[in-house]
Amino acid sequence: MNAPLPGQVMPAFQPRPMPAPLLAGLRAHFGERCSTAAAVCDQHGRDESPFAAMPPEAVVFCESTDDVAAAVRLAAEHRVPVIPFGVGSSLEGHLLAVQGGISVDCSRMNRVLRINADDLTVTVQPGVTREQLNREIKDLGLFFPIDPGANASLGGMAATRASGTNAVRYGTMRENVLALEVVTATGEVIRTGSRAKKSSAGYDLTRLFVGSEGTLGVITAVTLKLYPLPEAVSAAICHFPSIAGAVQATIQIIQMGVPIARCELLDVNAVRAVNAQSKLGLRELPMLLMEFHGSPAGVQEQAETVQAITAEGGGEAFEWASTPEERTRLWTARHKAYFAGMQINPGCRTVTTDTCVPISRLAEILDVSVAEADASGLPYYIVGHVGDGNFHLAYLVKDGDAAQRELAERLSMQMVHRAIALEGTCTGEHGIGLHKMGFLPEEAGEGAVALMRQIKRTLDPHNIMNPGKIFTL
Amino acid sequence: MNAPLPGQVMPAFQPRPMPAPLLAGLRAHFGERCSTAAAVCDQHGRDESPFAAMPPEAVVFCESTDDVAAAVRLAAEHRVPVIPFGVGSSLEGHLLAVQGGISVDCSRMNRVLRINADDLTVTVQPGVTREQLNREIKDLGLFFPIDPGANASLGGMAATRASGTNAVRYGTMRENVLALEVVTATGEVIRTGSRAKKSSAGYDLTRLFVGSEGTLGVITAVTLKLYPLPEAVSAAICHFPSIAGAVQATIQIIQMGVPIARCELLDVNAVRAVNAQSKLGLRELPMLLMEFHGSPAGVQEQAETVQAITAEGGGEAFEWASTPEERTRLWTARHKAYFAGMQINPGCRTVTTDTCVPISRLAEILDVSVAEADASGLPYYIVGHVGDGNFHLAYLVKDGDAAQRELAERLSMQMVHRAIALEGTCTGEHGIGLHKMGFLPEEAGEGAVALMRQIKRTLDPHNIMNPGKIFTL
Repeated sequence: MNAPLPGQVMPAFQPRPMPAPLLAGLRAHFGERCSTAAAVCDQHGRDESPFAAMPPEAVVFCESTDDVAAAVRLAAEHRVPVIPFGVGSSLEGHLLAVQGGISVDCSRMNRVLRINADDLTVTVQPGVTREQLNREIKDLGLFFPIDPGANASLGGMAATRASGTNAVRYGTMRENVLALEVVTATGEVIRTGSRAKKSSAGYDLTRLFVGSEGTLGVITAVTLKLYPLPEAVSAAICHFPSIAGAVQATIQIIQMGVPIARCELLDVNAVRAVNAQSKLGLRELPMLLMEFHGSPAGVQEQAETVQAITAEGGGEAFEWASTPEERTRLWTARHKAYFAGMQINPGCRTVTTDTCVPISRLAEILDVSVAEADASGLPYYIVGHVGDGNFHLAYLVKDGDAAQRELAERLSMQMVHRAIALEGTCTGEHGIGLHKMGFLPEEAGEGAVALMRQIKRTLDPHNIMNPGKIFTL
Repeated sequence: MNAPLPGQVMPAFQPRPMPAPLLAGLRAHFGERCSTAAAVCDQHGRDESPFAAMPPEAVVFCESTDDVAAAVRLAAEHRVPVIPFGVGSSLEGHLLAVQGGISVDCSRMNRVLRINADDLTVTVQPGVTREQLNREIKDLGLFFPIDPGANASLGGMAATRASGTNAVRYGTMRENVLALEVVTATGEVIRTGSRAKKSSAGYDLTRLFVGSEGTLGVITAVTLKLYPLPEAVSAAICHFPSIAGAVQATIQIIQMGVPIARCELLDVNAVRAVNAQSKLGLRELPMLLMEFHGSPAGVQEQAETVQAITAEGGGEAFEWASTPEERTRLWTARHKAYFAGMQINPGCRTVTTDTCVPISRLAEILDVSVAEADASGLPYYIVGHVGDGNFHLAYLVKDGDAAQRELAERLSMQMVHRAIALEGTCTGEHGIGLHKMGFLPEEAGEGAVALMRQIKRTLDPHNIMNPGKIFTL
């Protein structure tokens, strides 16, 4: 399943036998927390991408920054790849050990290190998941809004510059990481940034590591912005006769400056899938699922403005979900769309796009892409963070069916070319990983990619940090 | 005036004669737009910092990206420094030609290239000033909020990661630059980012250049986020018996999540200075100057919440300024505080700090620093973007009075050490330039600075891009 498709950049699997002294060194440091068991390696060499596993030769379960630094120093000494691992929820092949090496599992580094409620900041170890963090800060009246759907680790979310449903109001990991602790490619521990809300002190190393997908270092602590839990929260759904109507309403909501907290599109296929899985009984029409945060009066006002906009755009049945239970039910269903899609298409894997375009081009790209998807005969659905111009068109392809897979990849590629031509990006939030490598030069330009390579070669001279991802050297 | 003070890192002025073939090359390309006149060079070798001029050997007035690229290519060929110049409003010595070279004046690159009102984005040449931009987009119902006070160029604001009074709500240049065009140290033109609102495609080169202070390349175009002009805007002032009371109120405003658009502290000295200059008749007490943006009801609600908070904290006379004229008068006065300070202290220059700390530490650092400033006998004032934990304690020192200058610098240094110890930064928004170079290793750590140097050496191998700023190589 991992052979490159026409036009796709896909490094071949090139595992290398682990040098015996390296393995001995890892065992000496990690004891039983170093595993070479096939099942463990296999589980660490896969993710939620459509690729078959490429297992590392060893997995170390780190419990501290020192553990990570020790693993990286040993790896550096022996020029062996290091692949940081959080919870394995990547969609783009980030975790596959293309050149073999050591999976540095950070899931046991799962402590919230320091909450500064007065400053609205928190520092966590990289294995803390977003749901865990939100549980631990809820009683303080605080929350962390970035929500990619999966219960991802915050280290992984920083590494892929993740975002999700709340980004339209609260931004992405780019805007919400204040500081990092990083183990560099030489095994040195550095800090980037500080707890100050802003700074003009030197190069923005924090933003350089955010989104670097493990190719420049291993993130061992993350300092994040927090937000006061909104006094009032309200969700609403609104059905539209067409996707175009939903998109048009979204554009108006954004242009009017409504501080909407979530604005999600589900096409009719996505509605059917979540209905089937979650028994929601939603009308089978394209819909927007929205959320408003603020004071009670503010939320009321936002919702009224949005209701007027949607009515004008042909929106039907603007319905409220004001109780926490109703809201949770709706958002849980939305977050499960990915699994719901696979559930109603048994034996299938998902090939998903992650394009993001300027919002004025959203109707155009959706229009062409839906026509193409309909004509393909493949099962598909669309969910989208449309307030940001970001959406996912996910094809369901039979596992092992090369023809279906190729068709889905070809259509996805066409769509990405289209997004880039419309001044958009091949990935709004999933990262390049292995899957989108072919698009980066087209999107960023050869000059910018050359500069990225220069940075990579300088900070990781032996190319041991998650090699073969983002670009080949 | 430029000799290093005890503890200060300050490169000596090392001008170099301009190679004749380089000058010939510049003249061939730029004709009369290349000047070596002493007055022109002198004007381009100074800024609003307390340093005496260090003039470049030549100034080229660029009108296009091609002009900038041509200048940089010639400079690279001859290994001669390039110093980008916008409007000259730096406070930290960014524009001083420490090692001589060519000032690349971008002030004539002042066209708004492309407004995409539907997407809330704009692309400008680097010499467009923020006031010019706001004039050109006002009729579209849009505005660009980042407001450092000075009518700075947007290229310069990007290069120094500027922010200012609106950052508490709208963020800084870090959050508001979507994409750049940059001439690299080899004279190549690259693009970074796109008009998509978010992206996970590769290293965040945009954020690497934002705040790089001209040391990695020359910014030749900037794509920015815009915002719909708020339906309602209201300003308010509130006096407090002490700075501590004002700070405590600010902390509560932020912690309650009030989306305040501006929250500025003026100490009693700043109030006196703006009273003297702008005849405002403000009560001579510490005060907060605030602004609220939103719907009419939303603004009303925010102001009521804030009024309740300030009353609880001992705030007196919460006064409104609802007409645009009143608001403009207040903000113009605030923005002129820097010049007002010098005006009531004739013959003085300003030595200003720019520390930013987590908001919970703001009262503490202000308390100690005010006591120190009072004891010094030097005239001083404080203005602060306190909603972000950022403030400026500005000493007025007699031009040429070495003892006063040294005292002011020593006290400023102590305050910076204090800010860093409180997990803050030596510069919230002005940049490192020459003035804060001594603090970067203490703040960022030697490991992070070493990494910055590696990046600099890789992207600018001959060290021609604004050399001697941020750090020495």
